[in-house]
Parts: sequence; structure tokens; C-alpha cells
Amino acid sequence: MSVYLHDIPLEEARRRFEQALQRAGLDGVLGVETLPLDDRAVGRTLAEPVWARISSPHYHAAAMDGFALRAADTEGAMPATPVTLKYGDHVQYVDTGDPIPPWANAVVPIELVEPLREDGSVETEHPRRPYAIRLRQAARPWQNIRPIGEDIVATSLVLPAGHVLRPVDLGAIAACGHSEVRVARKPKVAILPTGTELVPIGTDPQPGDILEYNSVVLAAQVRQWGGEPTRFPISVDDFDLIRSRVAEAAREHDLVLINAGSSAGSEDFSARVVESLGELLVHGIAVRPGHPVILGMLHVEGRAVPIIGVPGYPAAAALTGEIFVEPLLARWLGRAPHQPPTLQARLTRKLASPAGDDDYVRVAVGKVGQQWLAAPLARGAGVITSLVRADGILIVPRGRQGYDAGAEVTVRLYRPPQALENTIFAIGSHDVILDLLAQFLAAHDRRLASAHVGSLGGLVALRRKEAHLAGSHLLDPETGEYNIPYIRRYLPHESVVVLGLVEREQGLMVQPGNPKGIRSLEDLARADVTFVNRQRGAGTRVLLDYHLARLGISPEQVQGYAQEEFTHLAVAAAVAAGRADCGLGIPAAAQALGLDFVPLFRERYDLVIPREHYESDLLSPLKAVLADEQFRQAVMRLPGYNVDAMGQIIAIVE
Amino acid sequence: MSVYLHDIPLEEARRRFEQALQRAGLDGVLGVETLPLDDRAVGRTLAEPVWARISSPHYHAAAMDGFALRAADTEGAMPATPVTLKYGDHVQYVDTGDPIPPWANAVVPIELVEPLREDGSVETEHPRRPYAIRLRQAARPWQNIRPIGEDIVATSLVLPAGHVLRPVDLGAIAACGHSEVRVARKPKVAILPTGTELVPIGTDPQPGDILEYNSVVLAAQVRQWGGEPTRFPISVDDFDLIRSRVAEAAREHDLVLINAGSSAGSEDFSARVVESLGELLVHGIAVRPGHPVILGMLHVEGRAVPIIGVPGYPAAAALTGEIFVEPLLARWLGRAPHQPPTLQARLTRKLASPAGDDDYVRVAVGKVGQQWLAAPLARGAGVITSLVRADGILIVPRGRQGYDAGAEVTVRLYRPPQALENTIFAIGSHDVILDLLAQFLAAHDRRLASAHVGSLGGLVALRRKEAHLAGSHLLDPETGEYNIPYIRRYLPHESVVVLGLVEREQGLMVQPGNPKGIRSLEDLARADVTFVNRQRGAGTRVLLDYHLARLGISPEQVQGYAQEEFTHLAVAAAVAAGRADCGLGIPAAAQALGLDFVPLFRERYDLVIPREHYESDLLSPLKAVLADEQFRQAVMRLPGYNVDAMGQIIAIVE
Repeated sequence: MSVYLHDIPLEEARRRFEQALQRAGLDGVLGVETLPLDDRAVGRTLAEPVWARISSPHYHAAAMDGFALRAADTEGAMPATPVTLKYGDHVQYVDTGDPIPPWANAVVPIELVEPLREDGSVETEHPRRPYAIRLRQAARPWQNIRPIGEDIVATSLVLPAGHVLRPVDLGAIAACGHSEVRVARKPKVAILPTGTELVPIGTDPQPGDILEYNSVVLAAQVRQWGGEPTRFPISVDDFDLIRSRVAEAAREHDLVLINAGSSAGSEDFSARVVESLGELLVHGIAVRPGHPVILGMLHVEGRAVPIIGVPGYPAAAALTGEIFVEPLLARWLGRAPHQPPTLQARLTRKLASPAGDDDYVRVAVGKVGQQWLAAPLARGAGVITSLVRADGILIVPRGRQGYDAGAEVTVRLYRPPQALENTIFAIGSHDVILDLLAQFLAAHDRRLASAHVGSLGGLVALRRKEAHLAGSHLLDPETGEYNIPYIRRYLPHESVVVLGLVEREQGLMVQPGNPKGIRSLEDLARADVTFVNRQRGAGTRVLLDYHLARLGISPEQVQGYAQEEFTHLAVAAAVAAGRADCGLGIPAAAQALGLDFVPLFRERYDLVIPREHYESDLLSPLKAVLADEQFRQAVMRLPGYNVDAMGQIIAIVE
Repeated sequence: MSVYLHDIPLEEARRRFEQALQRAGLDGVLGVETLPLDDRAVGRTLAEPVWARISSPHYHAAAMDGFALRAADTEGAMPATPVTLKYGDHVQYVDTGDPIPPWANAVVPIELVEPLREDGSVETEHPRRPYAIRLRQAARPWQNIRPIGEDIVATSLVLPAGHVLRPVDLGAIAACGHSEVRVARKPKVAILPTGTELVPIGTDPQPGDILEYNSVVLAAQVRQWGGEPTRFPISVDDFDLIRSRVAEAAREHDLVLINAGSSAGSEDFSARVVESLGELLVHGIAVRPGHPVILGMLHVEGRAVPIIGVPGYPAAAALTGEIFVEPLLARWLGRAPHQPPTLQARLTRKLASPAGDDDYVRVAVGKVGQQWLAAPLARGAGVITSLVRADGILIVPRGRQGYDAGAEVTVRLYRPPQALENTIFAIGSHDVILDLLAQFLAAHDRRLASAHVGSLGGLVALRRKEAHLAGSHLLDPETGEYNIPYIRRYLPHESVVVLGLVEREQGLMVQPGNPKGIRSLEDLARADVTFVNRQRGAGTRVLLDYHLARLGISPEQVQGYAQEEFTHLAVAAAVAAGRADCGLGIPAAAQALGLDFVPLFRERYDLVIPREHYESDLLSPLKAVLADEQFRQAVMRLPGYNVDAMGQIIAIVE
């Protein structure tokens, strides 16, 4: 039985895999197929160079509608001394694209010619078949003629092997006399999901059930990268079943991806299956996320078929596809592997990373002023939305323990930089309205990337010029005023616009039916009531502390005061999951998770926007959305919101 | 009958088309369809936002293999003061992904636990079902647990409408409880090629025949941009036939593209057809290439169907697709129109442009040293290879008469900038070996973009830092030496490597069978012999002038001396087409076009490379190719080459 010994460096894993592919003769194009030259050839990779069979144009062609003639016959033609030529042997009308007669070497456009009748008057009826033509300008040899080979000369190279076909390429290939293309055949990739805990998407999952969607993502990757995927049904954790499925897959595919079971747990059979059907090359790679990756070579019925054991966590699975499957398919298609565009950006926060791993950190990227910023997203291997939200990947190489905040880092981009210039970075307090706002802004070609660090964190981010705007609801305990005293304190040198978004209720989210009978903040001091708090710096936390102080309740009296969450929804989720009896938050979050809500306060939730951004093109769609009646109505359909101040400038703090 | 009046500005054309689409209610998504959530959904556009149906994880899940327990029970555990807990009611083994029991709030990884037997000895047989466990470290609440909603909270926005689905998106959509996606249906686009002169690809074209491949390019564009194309058979120029085909197409498609016939020639029926079936909105747009564009709205059986008359020249046709079809399909799919990345580059030569047009100039883009350069490609609307070779488009706006050489211009890129960093800019003398070199370099992930301006032009380009290398075969009349005296003169301040490529024959390319009995340069002075020359600055021109002077033949004695072509192949094409009896050039060019060859001289053809580029990563594959035996053999299969000096450093000129 195989033992999961230790993780080897990524480079070493690549090297072993590479050598095994070479030994098996699988390090080049797998095969060639001939396709008719039509639109379905787009995206396929040329297996052979295209050399021109014929020239284009393949004859001397008129480039204008006009008269073909011999340039020498027009010599001396001037406005005052026209030359008249009889239509016939050496003057002939041609349409654009017509072949030039062998005796001609120039075309005079019809609008520069006076067609004449035999009597010398102007021919108006048959201007293209006159008796003669009169010219007041001499023709240059080869004027208005597209000579043979102007575009493509026969025998020259039109496109090299390995080129991925685009629409215009098909035109050039046709123009030089081909009606078929020779392309690399699509590698066939089998994808085998394994695991007794897996259930197909579309089922209503029970606790412990895991929706099996990695095979969908892997199949989509394979298709996008030019392969032909086959998704196998889910296999339960049974060695013999998995082994027979893998053998079956190997018989009819070029590559087998077996998903999960690649770790070293009690039910992880992948490594044993690979050993029993061929060679286990690598078991465990020092790459994060993704450690339990398997690389192997199956030998089934005389064929060598590589197999990759893909980790079960979705972000790790998708990244394993990018790291191992894409370059392999590229090689089998004879094209260059995908080279993502890169960008230098400033890291918004300190990033710790284990020194032993190549660490693939997903980041959001945006441009604030002239500075590109990279904000690390959730690190968990299970968090697929971190890949959905990611604008790129920052690789912290082995031997490096992360980066300091503010470090200049290189990001490999998933989206073109152009698209990222349309990203509005919102950092600050969370409100579900931001989701709605994102949805409406998307229709205006703006992406709202929001990070939730609380109101105070948002103002700090604005001071560091790390965001375009901050959602804020900070109550000043001294004055009872919202936001403005804090802006004066945290952004003293900045001209800032405070834009009204909503007035909203804050209150206690409680279990459905409110079984503990929680009615007010006083109840938080009860011995039988547990609480889940927001993090320090959150406006909701300031609100709580303000009212607890007024009531004379100390934090020690509140059970769970130290348990912090970063968003209203996370607090609601904690209550819904029974981790606490209640939490302070907004009714929309309570409603979202089916909780009851005990309203306590009303507060203003504003957007704080440095003036330079407020006046930028980037943010002008924001003003349009806040004035959009459909948006207001969508907000009002949520519980506990008042939109009277929406879009109003509440203050300009200079 | 419609009259082609004059070209209107592009903006005005867009405005009229826009208004007509709005009037017809065709300015939004055409329809919605439901797809199963599988790999075929990649690339489709969401017609509705995706809101989370369930949270992900949908239960509190173990993030590690280990023991679920209550954190409070481990309080005080330290290396010296371990805590022992009995397995059972409040200690339970969980695999990664298992649900956490309701009483537990932490998971301790199995490797940090000592499993014990009842007698206190270590349990080795059943480490996951021990009698008790011993811990030497306290657990933190919620450690190694993925709480409900860690990834996605039910009801939150996962993806906005208008988002184009990528593989990871499918995972997120599945994770939040969906098994289907609602996407915009694909717009159906009919493509009708018209023209009596058209022949299908695959036919051997006769003079005057035009291979019909625009429909292939347009169909491929439509497919790439998310539409479903239908290619109609070629219609001859017959009003009734074209009209009935257009009407038929309009009944079953969302958009009709009619190719050519959109000009104002005698056989151009498109505008009349549009008028007879609906409204002609625009006939002629001031955009280059592309003038004769038609925009219209058909009204057939109560349906409004837009129609676009696409010009016949292939580069104009493809650009019309980009300018009008792509944004329309984007709108019908509800996604943002394609925004190409842009780049600032320095123009390598003066660019003249008609002030009245929006001029779409195709350019090659490369980075020489730290400077991005844009080199304009052939301007002709008929030159499809200019689009194949183009790295981007430079738009010279209406009202501007071009740019000076060296101007900073904005290029809209077809390829990501990353790919352009792999481009080797070769400017100078042409040799067919460069095609072979391009083919071999492509396998090393390098693109060779070569512009042919003659040997001297190449050295000038190196001086201006507009190329990485120049192919040169300049004979110094004083010394009889090749290249080095010129390098001293033209690149006095540069350290330059002269790398041997080939020794090659030069001679006269003549008609097959050599009907005029041309044997030497003396024959060029004959009255019955015509010649086609190379441009000034070409090495071949220098060679000719050198030998003519030695023979005492003056240029006036040579008929066609003033007729200049820019490449060996163009000279060969001129001879093959009968435009001249002979031209000076290389045997490979003669062979390519089936000409006979009269050998006269042998000369060295070198690569001149500034040292900074010679030593760069960019050019290191060049050295590998020159040392590659397969490359040498491919060169030797061509006539008239000697490869003894290939890859040798002939001189370093400091």
C-alpha cells in the first residue's frame, strides 16, 4: 500500500511527470485530423504550417471600376491637353475585381474619364461602353491594379504550426487555395468523481452530503483548453469499483482525472489504484491550495495513459487544472501554454505564507487613482467564490514567508487589465444593498468588488488610497452624529463627499420564534443568552458598545462578546447555525437566513467617497443607479430600509 | 432605385442603427433559455443574476481529519499538563467534510492527538476509535471547522446578469444549489454571399473568379462572439434571387449579413433589396477600410430584422464584423461589448490618412528594448494577411490627417501584450529563409514579425531602435566586404553582433525556358529585354548597381530599371506575370514561382543584431534554431544555399 510520505516541490513534480511523458512518447501532438475550412475550425490548433498553394490575388485584378489601358498611351494628358483614346483593342471597361487584359498596365477610375460618342459629345447612355474616352491626367503604370500575390505569394508561409485559428486566419487559408485545415486532434479526457459523500448537483443535500461539481468545472476547463471531456458517474469509495472505472477510462481516453481520494485518509484509494494499474510518480506536492495531488502513468492494454489525482476542495481542484492539465493539453495540441498577462500591484495587506510551499493566493485587483492594488481574497481551498471573484493569482514562491502590506507584487491576471479599470473597489461596512448595487452596476459595465472590514476599516482604506468608496455607519458617541466626525479624524487632508445611501434598522437577529424571548440589549446580560459579535471597527460594534455603555452592561457580562464575525450575513449564519442565540444586525440579513428580528435602532448608512473618485468616469454610473427608480424599488422590497436620502449629498468634508 | 449619395460619419451611422433597433424593440436580450449546468454552458451569458439558493457549506463541516469536541473541554491543556477526554458523547472522530456534531465547536487534527486504550497505553490499531484521547494544547472555538456559509451565504448574489460563464463560475453556481443556468439564447445570423464572380473554396479559380471565403470569416466571427451562424449558398447578381434569399433568411434569423453588392456598381443590388423589403438606414460610411457598408431594417411577415451590407474586400468585411456585428451580438446577449486592451506605442513610420474617414490601420506591435513600437501593415482593403499579421488596430479619427513617424499612438490590441513580448521584430532584407525561421521559432514560443525594407532600411531601423535584428547582404563597392563597412557607417555608437545565416546565389530570374536567352547582366541593356528592379537600399540593388557600373551599363539603358519591388518574391511574381522578362534575385524565389534561374554571384546574407538583443532571452531560441540540424536541412532543401556559416559569429562591431 502506498504511503503519503511528504510533499515534493512543484518543480520536482513537473520534472518527474515530464520524464514519464517522454518515456511514453506522449510529449508531442497526439494526432492530426483534417477539417473542412469552416467556422467550426476556429479555436483549433494547426498541426502543420500552412504554405500558400496559390497567390492572392491569383491574377492581376482591377482595384477600381474604370478603364483598363496602357499607361504609355496616356502620356502627356493634362487638364488643358487631354488625350482621347478609342474604346476597343487597348481600352476596355473593368469592374473592381475583374482581371486586367494582358496588354493593359493601368486602370483609370470611371469618375476621372469623359466617355465620348463618335461625334465627340458626352456619352450618357452607355458610359461604360463609349466610342472613346478622354483623359486629362496621365496614368502611372500599375495604378489601381492589385498585382498577383499582392496579399499572398504562392509557396510563402501563411501560418505556422501551433497557431490557434482565429476567424481572419480562415480567410487567409482559403485565399491561398486551401479548403481544408490540418489540426491537432482533441485530447480525450476522462473525469472520474469519487467519494461516498458525493451527491449529484440538483439533489437537495443533507448534512454531510457534498454536491459533486468539481467534475463540471474540470470538464469545462478541459473543453475551454481544447480537449474533449467525458464525465463519469460518481464512484463510491470502493477500491475495486474505482480501479475498474479507471481502467475503463484509460482504454478510451488520453488522460484520466480522478477527483479526490488523493489524500492519505482512510477512504483515499486513488494512489493505490494508480499503483495497481501503473506507476505512481508523485503523491503530494508542496503547492497551496492543492497539496494532495497525484501524478501517475497508467499502463492499460499496452497503452500508457497519464493520470492526475485532483484534490477534492474546489479551489484546489480548479487550480490543479490550471497548473497541470492546461500545459499538458497545450503540448498535446502543439500550441504554446497559456501565458496569463501580468501586472505589478501594491498589496493591500500583509500576507503570511508557509515557506515550504508555492502558494497560489487569489487576489482582487483594482486601480485606485494611478495605483494598481491587489487585495488578497479568502485563502481556504474550499472557497470556490474566491476563484470566481479573483482577478488574478499572486504566487508566493517556496522559500518566501509572504509579503508585507504595501509590497509591490506581480499578479497573473484572469481578466484583461482593461476590464479591471472598470472595477470599483468598495471597502468598509457590509450591507446587503451592496449586492444589489453590484447587480445594477454590472448593467453599466462596472464591477463592484467589495471587501468587508467594517466602517472604520473602510475609512482607513480610503486614507491609504486603497478603495474608491467606503460604506459607513459610524455613530459618534459624543455628538450622536453619523460618519462626519470620524471622517474629520481619519481623513483630515482629504476632500470627501458623503453620499446618502439608506437609513436602516438595526436590531437583534434571533432564532425563529424567538425561543429565548429576547427583547432588548439588556437581555444580552442574561446567563442563558449567547451572543455573536461584529469585529472591532464595525459600525454595528460601535453602536453596540455605545448602547451597552449607556445601559451599564460590561462586555464581560455578554457571553460570546469575543466571538467576532465580519459581516451581517456571517452573524446571521452563526445564529441560524445555533452557534449563538442572537447577534446585532440588519433585518435584511435576518430575513435572508430565515431568522426573526427584534428592531432596536435606526441609523444612517452612507457612502464615503473621496472627491477625486466621486467626480471620475468610473463612478458616474453609481450616481445613475442611485437615481434609478428600479433600484430604489428593489431596495424597498427588502425589510427595514428607507431610501429618502439615497443619492443626496449629505456633506462635503474638505 | 437607391442612390449611393455620400459616406456619413461612423458615429452618425451608429446612431441611426441604434434608433432603428430601439424602435423595433431589438435593443436588449432576445430571449432566455435554460441549460443544464455542465461544461457546455461555458462562454454563455447569464440572462439573470444568480442568487444563492443554499449556503456553501450548507452545514458546519470538518476542515481536517480529526476529533470533533467542545473547545471548553480542552481548557488548560499544555505540553506538561495534558487533558484526557473519553471518546463518545462529546468526542467523536470526523473525516474532512463530515458534519460537525451539534454539541461540538472545534476539530483537533488527528496528528495532534494521542489516542489511548482503556489502560492508558497508546491505541495503534484503531487510532480513530480509541478509548480516549489526550491533548497537549487547548482548542480554540471554531478551529478547523468550515462554518455554514463560509463560501456562499444563502440569498446572496453569486453572479450578476450579463456575466459570461467561465469554468469556475459553474462550480459556484452548483455550490449554491442550482443545477441549471438561465442564459441568453444565441442570436441566429444568416450570411448571404452574393456575386456572379464568386466561386466556392476548394475550386481551382480562373482569372476573374473570386474565392468566396468572407462568409467563412463572418460565420467564424459570429460563432466566436456567441451567435449561431448559417451560411447561405452563393447567389449570382440577380435582384429577384437575392431579394427572395434575403426574405427567406429574415424569416428564420435575427440578423442578416449580405456580403458585397453594397457598393454603387452596376451589379450592386443590396441597397435596392433592402429598400424593397424594409428601410435603408445607411448606405456608405466614412470608415476605412469599409466605405460601402449598408445598414437597414427588414420588415418581413411582421418581424423587424436588421440587415448589414458587408463590403466585399476581405479586410473591410472582417472589420465591419468587428465594428457592427460584435456590439450588436453583445447587446442581444446582454453582455458588455468586447473592449480590446490598449497599449501606447511609437509609430515606426509616417502615416497619411484621409481627413474625412475614421481610418482603421492594422499594425504589428513589438517591444524593442523598453519601447513598444507600432509598425503599420499593408493598407489595402483586399489584403487579408494584414489582419492575420496584425497585432492590433490604430484608429486615425476623422478630422486627422495621419501621424508623423515617432508619434505616440494608442493601439487596440488583438493579442495580449504578454504574447507581443515574444515577438522578434526583424526589419531588413527579405529572404525566404525568414519564413522557415519563423516556422521553427514558433515552436520555441517566439513570433518572427518581419518587415521587408531592404538591407539598408534594416540598418536604419536598428539605429532608430525599431527592430531586434536585420537581415543584410550589403556589398561594399570599395572593399568587396559584406555588411561590416555599412554597420560602421550606420551604427557607429552601437555594439553589434554579425551572425552568419547563409551564403546564397544571386542571379536572374527569367521566364520558364528562358525564351529571351538571357545569360548575363549585359543582356539587360538589350532593347528586347525588360527588367524589374528592387528598391533603393536593397542589398540586391546595391549588387546590381555595383556590377552595372563595372560593366559600364548606365541605368537608362535598362528598360524597367525604375520599376521597383520590395521583395524577391514580388520581383519573381512580376516576372511570372509577364510584367518583365527578368529580375535579379535568389533561386528559391524563382523556384517558388516556377521560373528559370541564371546564377551570377554568390553573396553572404547575415543577421545583424545589436548586442543587447543578441544576449536577451527573447533571442536565445534563435541561436537554438540556427544550431538545429533539422533547420539546416530544411534550408539545404531549397536551391542555392550554403549553411557553413550558419550560427557563427562573423564579427562583433563595437
